[in-house]
Amino acid sequence: MINFNKPYITGKEVHFIYDAVASGHISGNGKYTKICQKYFENQWHFKKTLLTTSCTDALEMCAMLLNIKAGDEVIMPSYTFVSTALAFVRQGAKIVFVDSRNDHPGMDENKIEELITAKTKVIVTVHYAGVACDMDKIMDIANKHELFVVEDAAQAIDSYYTGKDGIKKALGSIGHLAAFSFHETKNIQCGEGGLLAINDDRFIKRAEIIWEKGTNRAEFFRGEVNKYGWVDIGSSFLPSEVVAAFLWAQIENIDIIQKRRLEIWDWYSQHVDKLFEDFKFTKPSLPIYATNNAHMYYLVLSSFEERTLFIKTLKDKGLFPVFHYLSLHKSKYYSDKHDGRQLPNSDHFEECLVRMPFYYELEENEILKALSNQ
Amino acid sequence: MINFNKPYITGKEVHFIYDAVASGHISGNGKYTKICQKYFENQWHFKKTLLTTSCTDALEMCAMLLNIKAGDEVIMPSYTFVSTALAFVRQGAKIVFVDSRNDHPGMDENKIEELITAKTKVIVTVHYAGVACDMDKIMDIANKHELFVVEDAAQAIDSYYTGKDGIKKALGSIGHLAAFSFHETKNIQCGEGGLLAINDDRFIKRAEIIWEKGTNRAEFFRGEVNKYGWVDIGSSFLPSEVVAAFLWAQIENIDIIQKRRLEIWDWYSQHVDKLFEDFKFTKPSLPIYATNNAHMYYLVLSSFEERTLFIKTLKDKGLFPVFHYLSLHKSKYYSDKHDGRQLPNSDHFEECLVRMPFYYELEENEILKALSNQ
Repeated sequence: MINFNKPYITGKEVHFIYDAVASGHISGNGKYTKICQKYFENQWHFKKTLLTTSCTDALEMCAMLLNIKAGDEVIMPSYTFVSTALAFVRQGAKIVFVDSRNDHPGMDENKIEELITAKTKVIVTVHYAGVACDMDKIMDIANKHELFVVEDAAQAIDSYYTGKDGIKKALGSIGHLAAFSFHETKNIQCGEGGLLAINDDRFIKRAEIIWEKGTNRAEFFRGEVNKYGWVDIGSSFLPSEVVAAFLWAQIENIDIIQKRRLEIWDWYSQHVDKLFEDFKFTKPSLPIYATNNAHMYYLVLSSFEERTLFIKTLKDKGLFPVFHYLSLHKSKYYSDKHDGRQLPNSDHFEECLVRMPFYYELEENEILKALSNQ
Repeated sequence: MINFNKPYITGKEVHFIYDAVASGHISGNGKYTKICQKYFENQWHFKKTLLTTSCTDALEMCAMLLNIKAGDEVIMPSYTFVSTALAFVRQGAKIVFVDSRNDHPGMDENKIEELITAKTKVIVTVHYAGVACDMDKIMDIANKHELFVVEDAAQAIDSYYTGKDGIKKALGSIGHLAAFSFHETKNIQCGEGGLLAINDDRFIKRAEIIWEKGTNRAEFFRGEVNKYGWVDIGSSFLPSEVVAAFLWAQIENIDIIQKRRLEIWDWYSQHVDKLFEDFKFTKPSLPIYATNNAHMYYLVLSSFEERTLFIKTLKDKGLFPVFHYLSLHKSKYYSDKHDGRQLPNSDHFEECLVRMPFYYELEENEILKALSNQ
């Protein structure tokens, strides 16, 4: 049986957890939180990062930092995980959904500007499958209309965008703020976990406060104030050191993990035409400005019925591909709040996209063996 | 050097983390989350519990479940951790602070009713040091005025209240909802972690949805619906299985932990008069309806100056007692939102209360040895 996902363990997670425990500091913002954050800042040139208990929480921090209030409008794709919207809805935002591109589940950059009103505050880009949205276009629109850009980079660790300036930039380092996920389905993971990346100095000091339950505890520990207290809104966004220590073992192995995942991705890309020649589908395409971080390998079948048959056929052979998002604009919670526009590309990916089993330890010959089952 | 706290490790934490990892399910709501929850439900007769990433998050779930909205009033003590208030403020609540009792940092049950208005929705009790508030009085007031009661039981695991019916009830099992903490400073801990306890059936189904990012994923996995989607508000409140596995090792040892903590508490109680005879202070008192869970041992010095001298004297000998909360009604964030009432008992505990070093591995003769230093 080949499941869709199997979390990879490098073997050193428990070693670092022992070390964290031995240090006597297991609550948040200890040694491992700090070295994880430092790694991300150095590696991908974020100005400041903060580990969080989930990507949802990192997105909530974005919504709080941007002072999102009731009635503010936030533009984002409908074909995304519920948390992209949920985090802004919690602050009272109205979500304005953009359709996906027709060649990719990411949002159609050319359909954003027509949705901007006087109430629009933020554009949230989602780098689906770790493939960059066209950030030059999005940043130009945001700058023109004085909007903030949040990159939902949940799937986009170690992926890049090269725009008109020719400089290859890490996803999550381009918008004002960004959120990453370390959920067990991600390239590097700690079960549940996330990261807020801050690229605009204005947000750094307040982010530390919001992260630490609305207190100026960070300043206190740096000796900048002599006691700490309640100074702002916030929550308990920081994870246990147990989680941070686990994540550090994954970070140490990221190069090995990424190399292997890319091999698997390339193998799929080279073999799916032949392996699934009985089905009608398209393969993922990569825009010239984007890199592939091998987060997932997906196919887009020609119809919902075709996808249903595809999934059933593979399941019968012991392979478990899975569909993905349900369009948020049609969800039970939001359909009566949506402005009624049809989003046909989002619906198309909802009905036709399927994700192949994909994890570090997956072996190509296991797949071939399963597919040869009658 | 004897610090205020040293998180206790039973030795089996890493064993259970290995096991969680081997099971292939490291994200939330796996095997260890379920056995932790089941333990709490069976042990203390909560109708339903949900592990959370922090006590703050459990309190936020309470505020969401009670539909707290802008303008709603929530009554709570001022002498408490910022999260008690923060969770309700995040939903837009106005906090109405009650003063502490003069014999205990917990809120004065006789001063609650005069603060109730047509806008009051919730009374939040805080069982300071794990010592019960007078829950009969509080529940009577709540029932009379049709209010909800949330027990902030952050410090109150394995502590009890015996009211007029003569039945000994676990703290957290009396109000409509309750929140516990497993922060590293607590009796059992996982670095950062919490628990929502639900004692009213009306909240159970929705709590599962709010916990799982506003989706009906729990129903999906029970086979009650054939796909899951966005149905309500929510967040990612569930912790990684890495954290739950860690917590399970603590739970397995709770009897041993509690026995030893009670010994240390009793030792302090028997020796502080003599040990600190040069200082003026009062010792903690236990109301007849309450038990002691040995969460902390505190003293209330006769003045701020006396406390300052006490802390300095002990620090010079290598012992690190610490003060506790700053009254929230005077905080930078809330002072201009507070209604201006003076809360002298809260201020008194802010200025005069000190917590002694207190942890499982603390040895009485270490304390004696330190105090004999010149």
